[in-house]
Amino acid sequence: MDSYLIQVNGHGDHAPVLDVHLKNTGNTISPGKVKGRKPRWAVRASEMSKKTFNPVRAIVDSMKVEPNPKKAMISLSLGDPTVFGNLPTNDEVTRAMKEALDSGQYNGYAPSVGYQSCREAVAAYYTCPEAPLKAQDVILTSGCSQAIELALAVLANPGQNILVPRPGFSLYKTLALSMGIEVKLYNLLPEKAWEIDLEHLESLVDEKTACLIVNNPSNPCGSVFSKSHLQEILAVASRQCVPILADEIYGDMVFADCKYEPIATLSTNVPILSCGGLAKRWLVPGWRMGWILIHDRRDIFGNEIRDGLIRLSQRILGPCTIVQGALEHILHRTPPEFYHNTLSILKSNADLCYAALSAIPGLHPVRPAGAMYLMVEIEMEHFPEFENDVEFTERLISEQSVFCLPATCFEYPNFFRVVITVPEEMILEACSRIQEFCEMHYQGAEGAQDLECDK
Amino acid sequence: MDSYLIQVNGHGDHAPVLDVHLKNTGNTISPGKVKGRKPRWAVRASEMSKKTFNPVRAIVDSMKVEPNPKKAMISLSLGDPTVFGNLPTNDEVTRAMKEALDSGQYNGYAPSVGYQSCREAVAAYYTCPEAPLKAQDVILTSGCSQAIELALAVLANPGQNILVPRPGFSLYKTLALSMGIEVKLYNLLPEKAWEIDLEHLESLVDEKTACLIVNNPSNPCGSVFSKSHLQEILAVASRQCVPILADEIYGDMVFADCKYEPIATLSTNVPILSCGGLAKRWLVPGWRMGWILIHDRRDIFGNEIRDGLIRLSQRILGPCTIVQGALEHILHRTPPEFYHNTLSILKSNADLCYAALSAIPGLHPVRPAGAMYLMVEIEMEHFPEFENDVEFTERLISEQSVFCLPATCFEYPNFFRVVITVPEEMILEACSRIQEFCEMHYQGAEGAQDLECDK
Repeated sequence: MDSYLIQVNGHGDHAPVLDVHLKNTGNTISPGKVKGRKPRWAVRASEMSKKTFNPVRAIVDSMKVEPNPKKAMISLSLGDPTVFGNLPTNDEVTRAMKEALDSGQYNGYAPSVGYQSCREAVAAYYTCPEAPLKAQDVILTSGCSQAIELALAVLANPGQNILVPRPGFSLYKTLALSMGIEVKLYNLLPEKAWEIDLEHLESLVDEKTACLIVNNPSNPCGSVFSKSHLQEILAVASRQCVPILADEIYGDMVFADCKYEPIATLSTNVPILSCGGLAKRWLVPGWRMGWILIHDRRDIFGNEIRDGLIRLSQRILGPCTIVQGALEHILHRTPPEFYHNTLSILKSNADLCYAALSAIPGLHPVRPAGAMYLMVEIEMEHFPEFENDVEFTERLISEQSVFCLPATCFEYPNFFRVVITVPEEMILEACSRIQEFCEMHYQGAEGAQDLECDK
Repeated sequence: MDSYLIQVNGHGDHAPVLDVHLKNTGNTISPGKVKGRKPRWAVRASEMSKKTFNPVRAIVDSMKVEPNPKKAMISLSLGDPTVFGNLPTNDEVTRAMKEALDSGQYNGYAPSVGYQSCREAVAAYYTCPEAPLKAQDVILTSGCSQAIELALAVLANPGQNILVPRPGFSLYKTLALSMGIEVKLYNLLPEKAWEIDLEHLESLVDEKTACLIVNNPSNPCGSVFSKSHLQEILAVASRQCVPILADEIYGDMVFADCKYEPIATLSTNVPILSCGGLAKRWLVPGWRMGWILIHDRRDIFGNEIRDGLIRLSQRILGPCTIVQGALEHILHRTPPEFYHNTLSILKSNADLCYAALSAIPGLHPVRPAGAMYLMVEIEMEHFPEFENDVEFTERLISEQSVFCLPATCFEYPNFFRVVITVPEEMILEACSRIQEFCEMHYQGAEGAQDLECDK
């Protein structure tokens, strides 16, 4: 990561000096630059731009990614379900967009928080007796990323801290550091299906804690919290009086044997900003349609946070109006079979991938219950050739042309993340190559036996 | 404006205190909140959200806008050309969007700076020998607002200052203040068709000046700078070594008797970030497709500013991918007649409006040369009933149901702004009501004569 920083920041040091001429500005008083000394060109990038650091980009850019020319590249790295064409969005979604275009009604500016009718549609879609929502509880944003950005920006001041899962989605840290907000990482426990280490979580809370980020279902883990675990998390938040930023972009994307509970439905008092969007469930991440749902039944956020969100939304305005115009139809007309079909493909891929990787010596996949990912532990002691997960995944590219993200990208070394949205035959081919790779490099007395027994 | 601040910030003071219970967290060390005292709910909006202040919203919200129930409301206040349906976008633009939808190729994530092919298309559209552009000189953004936000965020640190036109578009100040950047207003001169007061401009430059914002064609003035005036502005920037943020969202929107010169085509050394987008010229402001064109032929920005822009773009990613997918066709297939037609309507409305308002006692419109606006001076001494432009425009609503923005919104009291994108019959009706209003309230010995003579 350091080498990336140096590489990126190192270029601009040679501020070229041009031949400049001072003009007498006549009877105007000219302070500063014009007084006394010759100005020089010295344009530097802002501190904020330097603090905006994407660890995934940094790690990936620093990896030596020369695939094996004899094998076609299989990338299991990108959390984008659309890249292979096996998971197209639904025709109703596309039709809704065309209707919005044809109407000619959605070309102008919308209110910065979104059209009232669209906010109503989202509220109506997600409201429930346990967590009622009205239009004024919905802020539309340019993708879930902007939802998270606005939520962080309204809740935290520079110098405060936020609690972030480890392993976790790197954007939280990228955004927080760019705003001068400290990140405190709380542990998820792979042996407990990535539940939160609640004691560790609670130990991190201090006077400066501005919010707790809960990501459920999880990227990169593919885990889904049970109702009782969510209640335990809410108990911590309630005891410590810490509001929750719930990243629920994978909401409802859970496999059939499991139930997704929006965290706000389980709390009567903790104020929650739930961030979501069309990206994953409707398979259109590029459309940049996100939202914040404001849950504040005890009026703890009050008008102050609501007004703050409205003000912040005015900086760049909200999402594309055509997508806004299509939103109500997208939410109401997309047939249930579409969601079921996506999930059954994901579940099938997850099962195949889990079974295949479980059989490989030195790897320990953690079975996912939702989202689009699966995390795999590398028993590094059995791969003494590789210093860490980054080197492991690097060599996996150069030898087998399979690209998985090293979990160092998620602050969790010695794991890698597999994206399970790719076509089945690719998953199988990738797993078989990973097996070949591991068998080649695995070291240990019981290695040969493991090959047969480790299921 | 103060009353708005109080109104907005005043609600959240009553942070409700809930009944909270401290749990012994066992053998975990629990610093901060859990130590010693009972935590209380006290969620406050961030400083940044409080500093994000939209003066237009503040002034408009504080206006007593009860229109005269006997007259239908005519709003000449909103810089959105789509509201009346008289200026639809071109069919080719809509068709390009449908093709992008049907292709199924534009649903996934694009790079945060935009698809390479789209960056190439924008570069190809705007490149010229005097200011050559390649794909890497283009950053796609979520509307021109985000273009301006990113440009400011990369160029200025908190505590630095930027030079902003007065009268000028309020977003510059909103964004700058939210980032802790100081705003220094330089004067435009109505008597010189809103040219910049260059001496005043230069007098404001100091050691902490991060950039100069040049908005041409201008909102709210509708003015278009001549080549020689742009050269004078560039001379100041060059002497003072201040980079330029050019807001050129109204680029090419100039009337036939006038020529638009992109400022970057006139400079060989001043580094320029030119912000633009589809919003105005293609009449789709809601689609949020903007861009930054990086002009840096002397390598003064260098990689530092380029890398900074790329990093900042990763915070929320770029514009909607469907619009990106349509962009090349929109730029290439939109027939020239479409642009001509828009401009001829604007020019005709501008002429009608200028002529009508020139004939009204106590008003002095400034003839526009482009964009979609016209500024009108109010001779306040002839309207002693009204304290200022805000009161004048307020009463214009309550008596005549005509809504024009008071130029206090643009830091320029005693003027108001008229939007000239409305249908001709509405412009004429509005002007006739403004005339009735002024004749009613005008005071002065020569008032009656003015009515006849003042052309």
